[in-house]
Amino acid sequence: MIIVMKPNATKEEIENVEKQLCELGFKTHPIFGEVKTVIGAIGDKRHLNTNIISTMPGVESIVPIMKPYKLASRELKQSPTIVEVGDVKIGGDEIVVMAGPCAIENEESYITTALKVKEAGAKILRGGAFKPRSSPYSFQGLEEDGLKIMAAGREATGLKLVTEVVDTRDVELVSSYTDIIQIGARNMQNFRLLKEVGMAKNPVLLKRGLSATIEEWLMAAEYIMDSGNPNVILCERGIRTFETSTRNTIDLSAIPVVKEFSHLPIVVDPSHASGTWKYVNALSKGAIATGADGLIIEVHLEPSRALCDGDQSLKPSKFAELMKELKPVANAVGKKL
Amino acid sequence: MIIVMKPNATKEEIENVEKQLCELGFKTHPIFGEVKTVIGAIGDKRHLNTNIISTMPGVESIVPIMKPYKLASRELKQSPTIVEVGDVKIGGDEIVVMAGPCAIENEESYITTALKVKEAGAKILRGGAFKPRSSPYSFQGLEEDGLKIMAAGREATGLKLVTEVVDTRDVELVSSYTDIIQIGARNMQNFRLLKEVGMAKNPVLLKRGLSATIEEWLMAAEYIMDSGNPNVILCERGIRTFETSTRNTIDLSAIPVVKEFSHLPIVVDPSHASGTWKYVNALSKGAIATGADGLIIEVHLEPSRALCDGDQSLKPSKFAELMKELKPVANAVGKKL
Amino acid sequence: MIIVMKPNATKEEIENVEKQLCELGFKTHPIFGEVKTVIGAIGDKRHLNTNIISTMPGVESIVPIMKPYKLASRELKQSPTIVEVGDVKIGGDEIVVMAGPCAIENEESYITTALKVKEAGAKILRGGAFKPRSSPYSFQGLEEDGLKIMAAGREATGLKLVTEVVDTRDVELVSSYTDIIQIGARNMQNFRLLKEVGMAKNPVLLKRGLSATIEEWLMAAEYIMDSGNPNVILCERGIRTFETSTRNTIDLSAIPVVKEFSHLPIVVDPSHASGTWKYVNALSKGAIATGADGLIIEVHLEPSRALCDGDQSLKPSKFAELMKELKPVANAVGKKL
Amino acid sequence: MIIVMKPNATKEEIENVEKQLCELGFKTHPIFGEVKTVIGAIGDKRHLNTNIISTMPGVESIVPIMKPYKLASRELKQSPTIVEVGDVKIGGDEIVVMAGPCAIENEESYITTALKVKEAGAKILRGGAFKPRSSPYSFQGLEEDGLKIMAAGREATGLKLVTEVVDTRDVELVSSYTDIIQIGARNMQNFRLLKEVGMAKNPVLLKRGLSATIEEWLMAAEYIMDSGNPNVILCERGIRTFETSTRNTIDLSAIPVVKEFSHLPIVVDPSHASGTWKYVNALSKGAIATGADGLIIEVHLEPSRALCDGDQSLKPSKFAELMKELKPVANAVGKKL
Repeated sequence: MIIVMKPNATKEEIENVEKQLCELGFKTHPIFGEVKTVIGAIGDKRHLNTNIISTMPGVESIVPIMKPYKLASRELKQSPTIVEVGDVKIGGDEIVVMAGPCAIENEESYITTALKVKEAGAKILRGGAFKPRSSPYSFQGLEEDGLKIMAAGREATGLKLVTEVVDTRDVELVSSYTDIIQIGARNMQNFRLLKEVGMAKNPVLLKRGLSATIEEWLMAAEYIMDSGNPNVILCERGIRTFETSTRNTIDLSAIPVVKEFSHLPIVVDPSHASGTWKYVNALSKGAIATGADGLIIEVHLEPSRALCDGDQSLKPSKFAELMKELKPVANAVGKKL
Repeated sequence: MIIVMKPNATKEEIENVEKQLCELGFKTHPIFGEVKTVIGAIGDKRHLNTNIISTMPGVESIVPIMKPYKLASRELKQSPTIVEVGDVKIGGDEIVVMAGPCAIENEESYITTALKVKEAGAKILRGGAFKPRSSPYSFQGLEEDGLKIMAAGREATGLKLVTEVVDTRDVELVSSYTDIIQIGARNMQNFRLLKEVGMAKNPVLLKRGLSATIEEWLMAAEYIMDSGNPNVILCERGIRTFETSTRNTIDLSAIPVVKEFSHLPIVVDPSHASGTWKYVNALSKGAIATGADGLIIEVHLEPSRALCDGDQSLKPSKFAELMKELKPVANAVGKKL
Repeated sequence: MIIVMKPNATKEEIENVEKQLCELGFKTHPIFGEVKTVIGAIGDKRHLNTNIISTMPGVESIVPIMKPYKLASRELKQSPTIVEVGDVKIGGDEIVVMAGPCAIENEESYITTALKVKEAGAKILRGGAFKPRSSPYSFQGLEEDGLKIMAAGREATGLKLVTEVVDTRDVELVSSYTDIIQIGARNMQNFRLLKEVGMAKNPVLLKRGLSATIEEWLMAAEYIMDSGNPNVILCERGIRTFETSTRNTIDLSAIPVVKEFSHLPIVVDPSHASGTWKYVNALSKGAIATGADGLIIEVHLEPSRALCDGDQSLKPSKFAELMKELKPVANAVGKKL
Repeated sequence: MIIVMKPNATKEEIENVEKQLCELGFKTHPIFGEVKTVIGAIGDKRHLNTNIISTMPGVESIVPIMKPYKLASRELKQSPTIVEVGDVKIGGDEIVVMAGPCAIENEESYITTALKVKEAGAKILRGGAFKPRSSPYSFQGLEEDGLKIMAAGREATGLKLVTEVVDTRDVELVSSYTDIIQIGARNMQNFRLLKEVGMAKNPVLLKRGLSATIEEWLMAAEYIMDSGNPNVILCERGIRTFETSTRNTIDLSAIPVVKEFSHLPIVVDPSHASGTWKYVNALSKGAIATGADGLIIEVHLEPSRALCDGDQSLKPSKFAELMKELKPVANAVGKKL
């Protein structure tokens, strides 16, 4: 890291900072500019309380040089991570599409939907049994009954399952039913939950928080990985901006940024990002062409009857069309679908 | 609510929407404009899945007329809520200041700090035993040992306690030690945690999420209140914007907005909002003059040794100065301190 | 529009609002809900000062139903606008790529670049003669000398030109040299400049402002169109968000949104959006797959010597590769390149 | 500045960067860390195209150490600048309030308003003759006739004038009528206009752009100062965020930040920041208590008849009340009003 001293820092203040850094195990290299002095400090900053330094007299600011994440970083692991969910591989040259309804409602419609998304080419079946809703008056999910229905959907189709967990107390339960555990956007910095799924055996789909920087998102992945679970799939689902014509603003530039700084695979959720089914087709193509490893898409037999997020759900027929149209886009960027 | 039909919606589509609304128990009032038809629908929208309507052919959008929150709303309760914590009243004509370190580190320094903030005029003692940190490599808090130290601080001073809970599994434990339970910004939409503290007997200090609108914040309060706990204190702590010269951007306009739409008291956290102790004095005065009911301020005996957020902590002497300077500001807006 | 009355609005207040609306030429339709009354008002709101109504006693808010733009709207013109620049057509089934350096530096390098981007398949040549720079100490452009060099580039290649104007006093001059006039992001709400280019004969490339909503962007187009110039090409170039890993956040969802609400063509500037050449390839593909009508890309013979934005410029060889890789993506979404 | 090399940068790449820096007149100081090498470079970066360095093989990023502004900086001038407009001093220990209507409408109402705001204690009279409106269908101002009315207002009251200029072609005209020239938020990065008012003799009120960082705002001031005009008054008027309950989000933390990094005075515009007169009182007090040097407030005789921004205008009686209530707040922070 680099310590920037104030323009009027005294020689004594500079020396004190150097002394303190040395005591903390850093090697120091001061550079005396015309206006300001900066001190290069070599050592591992991760376990340091930087305020020991930042609050010293004469210090203006501290500039980190190393990324704060390590396990999630390309610097540690150059080759891309391929997360295997049974025989489904996420992060390789095959695009993986996850699809299904927002919330589980009943077995019959779930299995019908599951068969249809399988037929269209989806490899993983989504569905919510525990729903984080912004209003206490909205449908909150079927809980374990929903998980049982999902298991029936898997049995009927052979598809793998992905579903969200929202409470540390439910991780074991959810883990026992699902193939992939999902951490929703609103829980991206629920650090206890991250640690808990870090101890589970399932791969984790980690959605980006509504206002999380890419660095914070990778730090959330680091929490999971540091707890022992290396199988993290990142999911871009739109960020919060001033724009109101879409529910969130999809940040497709996150794809090349993540690919540069991390070895983890990244999928995109165009349904939540846009909040309306009308834009899902265009954004799905855009995501694949930009380099996403997969998609997670909301599909409902009858969107107008959906108990959750019907506005952004595709009917199975629209989903099947989309899958057909996605194939040439995937091929155009050297991927299979 | 108002249903806006598309410019080219057919007569049949309009009639279908009306029929559907009637079946759902709404009374409808269509207005035929030159370009678009809108349908006024009278009834309680809170328990409705609006997508039953929004996905119907010919529908362009739905405009809600009523606020989505009820218990937190001024429409339901005109008089301001005064939250009582023993003999401390939050929301009345007395400014309440909460102060203490970010994280509990050890008993000796905590009690020394507690005595000093009490002497300066604080009424409530803060401190973190469970710390939500963005890096897994940072200090995560002393947990129950920290709570015990806080209890010792209360015994030594008579001050009330406020501390954060970050896991549903710890609510009972934290509740048994503290006077006020804090929900941190990153957990503002951890709905399970909201429900759990909604069942606790303690008042709840609900911090605004980093990118939460005021409406979402009040909906989070609604979750707590709907679970049975009416004693919610809102806490503005800065929102995330494009500006980088402060850690967050303090939104003092939230004070008059909250006062207009809700009866709940609101306090301000200038320490987290700015991220640097240098701005805490100015922003504290600004918050009080704008109409805040109180402040929550980080104070540490030796900020450079703080295990958490030292950069934004005031030394006790600076805090005492601030308290002296705040008094005339409080008086200038008709409040006591 | 819909006027929402306060919960406690009196009968008299409601009648006064209705009376006022009638005087202003609106037809009114009150709807009496259980808590609030709303008044539907039919008429043309565009020339109305809504505060005549919004400041009346008992009024809570006004909800517009019609879009504020008309000429730019799909409601007025269903078929997509194809802007013709000589024989180049923007907005049809052919992707149009504009390329060239950020700033014009000298004739020799400009013509070399021009020949190379033409060879790779670009149809329009970009270049800046008047540069809006955030520092007064940065290179500000060659002004008319730059325009002369651009004209030489056109002569050498037959490509059409696009260049920015930053001052109302220069519109005539710039217009006389260039084919397309560019309005930069920082001038998107420089309304005098919009009016001035609205009187020019050239098509206008209108960049989206850093924090402009899509509606404000279309209103800026409306200014140009209302001044007599129907040939507006919208250009998405990234918006300002909290994310710092890219210079701006590219908003590709703007493409389907614009296509839904407007008939104007839309191109994307991945160079400014990302701020780094490394991400230009991925984002260009993403933009085309999402449905953009074209791209504008910075190309420099020797980016390290560029007087402006070298970090985000592609070398001609990288640009040629990109053009080759874009072709199958364009084909995959039914377009030619 | 600090050049951060990539983890795998070769010895040759590092030497090449050093050589290049030396050729550009910098002195270099490499620091070899375990993973990355950084190179400290001493010299004046302001006139450098940093991409000469940033695009070199092996370079990861460049970290600036010095602020990009100089004339606006506290580093150059320690004592606060007091801008004198006749006998009115902005930036000293007296709070200066500017008031008046958004747009000039007619002489009679303007003079009545002027007399009333003077009586209440305002020192400067505001009013818009050239209005930047987001819709071409809205009232665009009376132009020179409006300036004449303003001059009559000054004659009738002795108050100083502040009014906005929106076109380089009008700077001379506006300058000849007004005391202070205003640059509006939408023109904060209209660099030609900044240069033009930099050549005028009048002090300049520089509003912060809707999405301008404080650093960009000070760079805009630098443009004006670099053109020869040292009398810049900064004006915070709210920034654009995701929050929709106010028109903009007032950033009062900008006050202590500006005071730390610049010597220029700063005033606050609570009318535009909030967009509604109801919040102007609270935010005015908050701004003064936080340390603002003054306020600019919209006042209209009959807000419901205002041709512009009626919703956010105070009636003269409300303004007089506010001025009375502001006095003790100013006193509480050691200022006069």
